[in-house]
Amino acid sequence: MKISILGGGGFLGRRLAIRLAADGQLGGHAISGLTLFDIVPPPAPDAAFPVHCLGGDIAELPAAAIPPGTDVVFHLAAVVSAAAEADYDLGRRVNMRGTDAVIDACRALAKPPRLVFTSSVASFSGGQGALLPDDARQVPANSYGAQKAAAELFLIDATRRGFMDAVCLRLPTIIVRPGRPNKAASSFFSGIVREPLLGLETDLPVPDDFAVWVASPRSALGWLMQAAVMDTTSLGLDRSLNPPGISVTVGAIIAALDQVRQGASALIQRRPDPAIAAIVGGWPAGFTATRARALGFAPNEDLVTLVRSFVADDLDATREDRGI
Amino acid sequence: MKISILGGGGFLGRRLAIRLAADGQLGGHAISGLTLFDIVPPPAPDAAFPVHCLGGDIAELPAAAIPPGTDVVFHLAAVVSAAAEADYDLGRRVNMRGTDAVIDACRALAKPPRLVFTSSVASFSGGQGALLPDDARQVPANSYGAQKAAAELFLIDATRRGFMDAVCLRLPTIIVRPGRPNKAASSFFSGIVREPLLGLETDLPVPDDFAVWVASPRSALGWLMQAAVMDTTSLGLDRSLNPPGISVTVGAIIAALDQVRQGASALIQRRPDPAIAAIVGGWPAGFTATRARALGFAPNEDLVTLVRSFVADDLDATREDRGI
Repeated sequence: MKISILGGGGFLGRRLAIRLAADGQLGGHAISGLTLFDIVPPPAPDAAFPVHCLGGDIAELPAAAIPPGTDVVFHLAAVVSAAAEADYDLGRRVNMRGTDAVIDACRALAKPPRLVFTSSVASFSGGQGALLPDDARQVPANSYGAQKAAAELFLIDATRRGFMDAVCLRLPTIIVRPGRPNKAASSFFSGIVREPLLGLETDLPVPDDFAVWVASPRSALGWLMQAAVMDTTSLGLDRSLNPPGISVTVGAIIAALDQVRQGASALIQRRPDPAIAAIVGGWPAGFTATRARALGFAPNEDLVTLVRSFVADDLDATREDRGI
Repeated sequence: MKISILGGGGFLGRRLAIRLAADGQLGGHAISGLTLFDIVPPPAPDAAFPVHCLGGDIAELPAAAIPPGTDVVFHLAAVVSAAAEADYDLGRRVNMRGTDAVIDACRALAKPPRLVFTSSVASFSGGQGALLPDDARQVPANSYGAQKAAAELFLIDATRRGFMDAVCLRLPTIIVRPGRPNKAASSFFSGIVREPLLGLETDLPVPDDFAVWVASPRSALGWLMQAAVMDTTSLGLDRSLNPPGISVTVGAIIAALDQVRQGASALIQRRPDPAIAAIVGGWPAGFTATRARALGFAPNEDLVTLVRSFVADDLDATREDRGI
């Protein structure tokens, strides 16, 4: 099985590459080659199979990023929410032209590959009170979400035309992300756990009763790998899934933090930020996720387990990376 | 009021230009200039105000197509359903890159213009049995519909960003179109009325009980003009409307034809065409259109009135155009 990861240098892309390298197989198929593509060539994990790392502009995707014989493409490359809001042209270029280039690369293959696309909860509006069914209409309240929803439409159409076999996962907000705060409007949802665990102060721009639909990196990785090998015949025309995240309040995240490390939440500074609140406030805080559950996508773990997983998987490496 | 019509050489665009020229005003505002853009420069109607006609590629839209001070843009330019299905790259270029170019031209104006976009019933699936509410999700079963739905997302986002003030009308299948059969998969819905009235045989590729959501050219024109001047404040984020067409069977269209011209339907040849049926069979045949009705969009006239309007408005000109 030959696999490409577009956005292979990003948070989920790197983690996925390391996991595939460690497993040596995906869904019982031995991996014979892995290609990682990002703006700059991503680091290659140690693997028993060849790993090719490429850098470039996804809107001008080099053919080598999805080489002949590729069976699975993970299309994770994106300009994130606050960045796409700040720079309309950049968001359109990477999120739309990039997806068009990915479609064209898949069209050029002899056999249509499975393509797993990370769409987002940000492609919906409805806000705090909403509990969205699987067939909810996407009326995005931000450019990133509009671009993700449009990309789903193009990938659904490309699947119908036989260019690929796509599965689009509308990922919840992923917590806890390692590394540093980034330009995503949702960055603080990870920051309020990660930064205090590093002994650092961090800002909370929304009230404690603010609700959010989240998933852990472990769950997201599991869903991506399941989407890569699942039987898609039952999906029909509609290739988009809302995976089973959990709806939690910021206050519940903080309580889980304190349960794992007593008193850690004292480092959280409550500083309302209307610009951030306006973006994340538009995202629905709950989904039924009925279809994905029925397809066997595993529900996300509880918050305390999620915080403990971050401590086990990422805290030391994050400390080291940031020289803390 | 300065107005641009993109796709000004098409069926609705030409008709709209003639109507605006005749009226001299829109919504009580005197028209001070009209720009018509299409692949080749559209014909200029006789008007008391300056009319500029331009030709070109909408994906490389010349700035003069939406000149400084433009108040209203009608964006009607599109590669139609069967053509977009036959040529993926052409559909993507005109329907997507073209819409991006229109957004960029509107962004360049000092004051965001009202933009009226013709989306389509083809952006939905669900088929014959469906009665779709206003918040139905668009899961298109053809490339044209996917491109229209994605364009709506981009125009909604461009509106939210303040680049324009968009209203997207998902037009029903328009009958009766004058002229000749064209590449739209829906061409036959007009053909079964127009061709027999011209004394010509015509093919019917679907069964008589096939249902379809239709509107007349008169209704479509009225809706476009209303969308150009309506108060959009109540629309909020969601700029897409399903205007109140009518759900009819092909058999009912044929009965209306015979009521207007006895025995005319004898010229209709029943020749099933699976390729055409597959495209139009995916479009829903009914919409509640609740929101548009509440906003005062006039319901479409009944079928006999619709056929009589074609005879009054278009039959002689069509006969002359085609040298019959």
